[in-house]
Amino acid sequence: MADDSQSSLTKLFEPRVVALIGSSKLTEAVGMMNPRICDSIYYNLTKFFDGEVLKYDIGTDVEKLKETPVKADLAVIVLSAALANRAVEFCGKNGVKAAIVVPGGFKDNERSRLIETASENRIRVLGPNAIMGVINTKNGLNTTFERDLMPKRGGLSVLSQSGGVGAALVDWATYYGEGISKFIWLGDKADISEVELLGYLSEDEDTKVILMYLESVKDGQRFLRAARKATGKKPVVILKGGVSEEAKARALSHTAAISVGSDSIFRAAAKQNGVVIVESMEELFIAGEVLEKQPPMRGKRLFIVSNVGGPAVLAADATRQSGFKLARLSEEVAKRIESKYPGVEAINPLDIIADARADRYREILEDVLQEDEVDAVLVINMLKSCLILAEDTKVIAQVAKEYHGKPVVDCAPGGEDYDKIRGTLSGTNIPVFNAPEKAVFALKILSDYGEYLSRTDKKEL
Amino acid sequence: MADDSQSSLTKLFEPRVVALIGSSKLTEAVGMMNPRICDSIYYNLTKFFDGEVLKYDIGTDVEKLKETPVKADLAVIVLSAALANRAVEFCGKNGVKAAIVVPGGFKDNERSRLIETASENRIRVLGPNAIMGVINTKNGLNTTFERDLMPKRGGLSVLSQSGGVGAALVDWATYYGEGISKFIWLGDKADISEVELLGYLSEDEDTKVILMYLESVKDGQRFLRAARKATGKKPVVILKGGVSEEAKARALSHTAAISVGSDSIFRAAAKQNGVVIVESMEELFIAGEVLEKQPPMRGKRLFIVSNVGGPAVLAADATRQSGFKLARLSEEVAKRIESKYPGVEAINPLDIIADARADRYREILEDVLQEDEVDAVLVINMLKSCLILAEDTKVIAQVAKEYHGKPVVDCAPGGEDYDKIRGTLSGTNIPVFNAPEKAVFALKILSDYGEYLSRTDKKEL
Repeated sequence: MADDSQSSLTKLFEPRVVALIGSSKLTEAVGMMNPRICDSIYYNLTKFFDGEVLKYDIGTDVEKLKETPVKADLAVIVLSAALANRAVEFCGKNGVKAAIVVPGGFKDNERSRLIETASENRIRVLGPNAIMGVINTKNGLNTTFERDLMPKRGGLSVLSQSGGVGAALVDWATYYGEGISKFIWLGDKADISEVELLGYLSEDEDTKVILMYLESVKDGQRFLRAARKATGKKPVVILKGGVSEEAKARALSHTAAISVGSDSIFRAAAKQNGVVIVESMEELFIAGEVLEKQPPMRGKRLFIVSNVGGPAVLAADATRQSGFKLARLSEEVAKRIESKYPGVEAINPLDIIADARADRYREILEDVLQEDEVDAVLVINMLKSCLILAEDTKVIAQVAKEYHGKPVVDCAPGGEDYDKIRGTLSGTNIPVFNAPEKAVFALKILSDYGEYLSRTDKKEL
Repeated sequence: MADDSQSSLTKLFEPRVVALIGSSKLTEAVGMMNPRICDSIYYNLTKFFDGEVLKYDIGTDVEKLKETPVKADLAVIVLSAALANRAVEFCGKNGVKAAIVVPGGFKDNERSRLIETASENRIRVLGPNAIMGVINTKNGLNTTFERDLMPKRGGLSVLSQSGGVGAALVDWATYYGEGISKFIWLGDKADISEVELLGYLSEDEDTKVILMYLESVKDGQRFLRAARKATGKKPVVILKGGVSEEAKARALSHTAAISVGSDSIFRAAAKQNGVVIVESMEELFIAGEVLEKQPPMRGKRLFIVSNVGGPAVLAADATRQSGFKLARLSEEVAKRIESKYPGVEAINPLDIIADARADRYREILEDVLQEDEVDAVLVINMLKSCLILAEDTKVIAQVAKEYHGKPVVDCAPGGEDYDKIRGTLSGTNIPVFNAPEKAVFALKILSDYGEYLSRTDKKEL
């Protein structure tokens, strides 16, 4: 049964044939059931998916699926509750292993019936209310109804219980060029749960970091066991919504799930098991990017190199508030820097002055990364009011690669400058942030995860 | 003397003739003195400034300025310490009222000498280390050396003690299309101080909101008096850098200013006088935008309207953490909404479902804004996975205008969606944020300022 279930989950991500089941004849007054949605899913599937795509239009009669049996590994169902239930039944009977039920608005009894139908017919269901369903960048599987939405391939896998939060995250990922492995919209979690998918993703070789937006967890103890197993292999980051009482009411209403009893207990237990807990969508995104690109930070001693003063001052302020120490340079290195660059004062944060270009950045970064006292480096580069060009920042990625045990992150404060430097450093391992406090937050994430790993390493001795 | 000083400050922003004084023959090994900088300032001045621009090249001999006297209201000086001092002297003797000394790196005694020279020759000096100097969007005065950098006209005036932080903020402003009145880089504040400029901007009709990045304040008591005077007229927002001991060392080194004794005392006193204190560059920018576009929030009861569930849940969480109450709808309005839109549950946050378009937003926003219980509204609109189009969001600005006493802010979570909706709503009074927690933070700023105004209103009774 466990093997069977595992192979069904595999079909959710790696089907050979996908069947899209909807109706061109039925619509709702308010809600997500709409022929346009079906058309858009079909558009994305046929455009991106490596495998075969079949389309089933039930018109006004779901019983049609008896005459024309669904022959696929995975079904994507865009039908309201009663019809979806019958479609799942027909699919199961025909050997379809997994189904994504896109629309929401299921009542409690409709949801229970769907679980029964799925179990009786040995088919696993994602949803209902799965909204955008699944993206797998490896084979181009894309059941979203946002035409042409396809993130590039990479190591982040994202699980979202909310359609909206997931949509915002996939929008961010495509906009900023973050590489995605798998994207899953959990919906109501009537059948396939966050625990199963966490287990699946922790074994998945293409997934380097797991990001989750959750409003509820069905079985806290099972979830924590799965989390502990996962965090030993790769970082897991969770944003928990529905913390306040009022938000809980909304969360309950829109995802139809039972909320975790005590949020603070869940958070503490998750942290204890190595999960990185974040407080906002932006923090979730930052954590994903930095954990995918940079190694864990082992130690608390940070060094700041900047071509401007003010943003470095703000970074130093944020550093202290995050519990970091500002590393001191050895006398030898400090002397070398000051004698080579008159006017540069070799303290931390180190202001290498507005006319610094690639060469000065390279030399000073090499000096700093070699220091035993330095556990990570935050580099700041302003283009505006300085002589540096965007291309110069490539040197940061080159030097960081040579000292790959120590995290290096970049901050390009501003708007246009940020775009330019982010563009220049895309395809490298250097994450770029548009404000100093975000770069420091990113390092805090690496430090928290590094601390957890050190703790577990010691236990295993 | 006060009048004289005031008229000198006026010349800093409203000169008829600007003289650019530099050298095509002198450069430094490390530092900002470079003929390219002069050329770029000249490029911007001649491109944007309504008045006359004169160029003085001293070559290798500053005494040239004796033979060809500088005839201008404002001088922009790109010379190292000794030469700049002599140039200021010649300018003062010729009746130039104000000078901007661009380069930094002045030693203590050089700075003292510059103050003496300025005072003896009745000329006011911005800087040294004024870096980008001054922008006034009204007359196109632009002494920056970033070619073509010119924010659009608007109500924000920004004072930055740091070149880098100022550069990042002006970059953000141009990138996001925020309207600027004046932009001033304070530099070392050897002569013209933050107190004088705060006073000037608080009287300036074109300035609606004052944003400041400060690392030090020379005379705390005078500054607080000026702040209290200003905050009665318009919002003042301060980001204070150099809070930690380490950052203080850097701040001292790069702006050559004495740091405030106790940062926490300064912050508390500033807040007491109505100053909005923020913690990061992004918060400073958000505060500026929302204070310029929306009225102060009078009360703590917030209502959230969204076309998706998850981001509304996160907004509700952030709401509680900010000390807001979630407003309740009256029974009458709740009934009307639920009977008109089956499937919509009239709680707060209100999920008006993913197929909501302009009409549904309009009707529900009108209902909500009319409620006595509601002090402000946070609107969320996802484009992805929803049927709404960017143009539909214009309705938010229309409705908000009709109920202009109550703040309305918008959140478009994501990247591409955010760009689209921000673009659609630019030119309206609706600020748009890319994540729910930022929209809630913006409302918190309006609420803090509203609370201060209510407190002072009561005192005056």
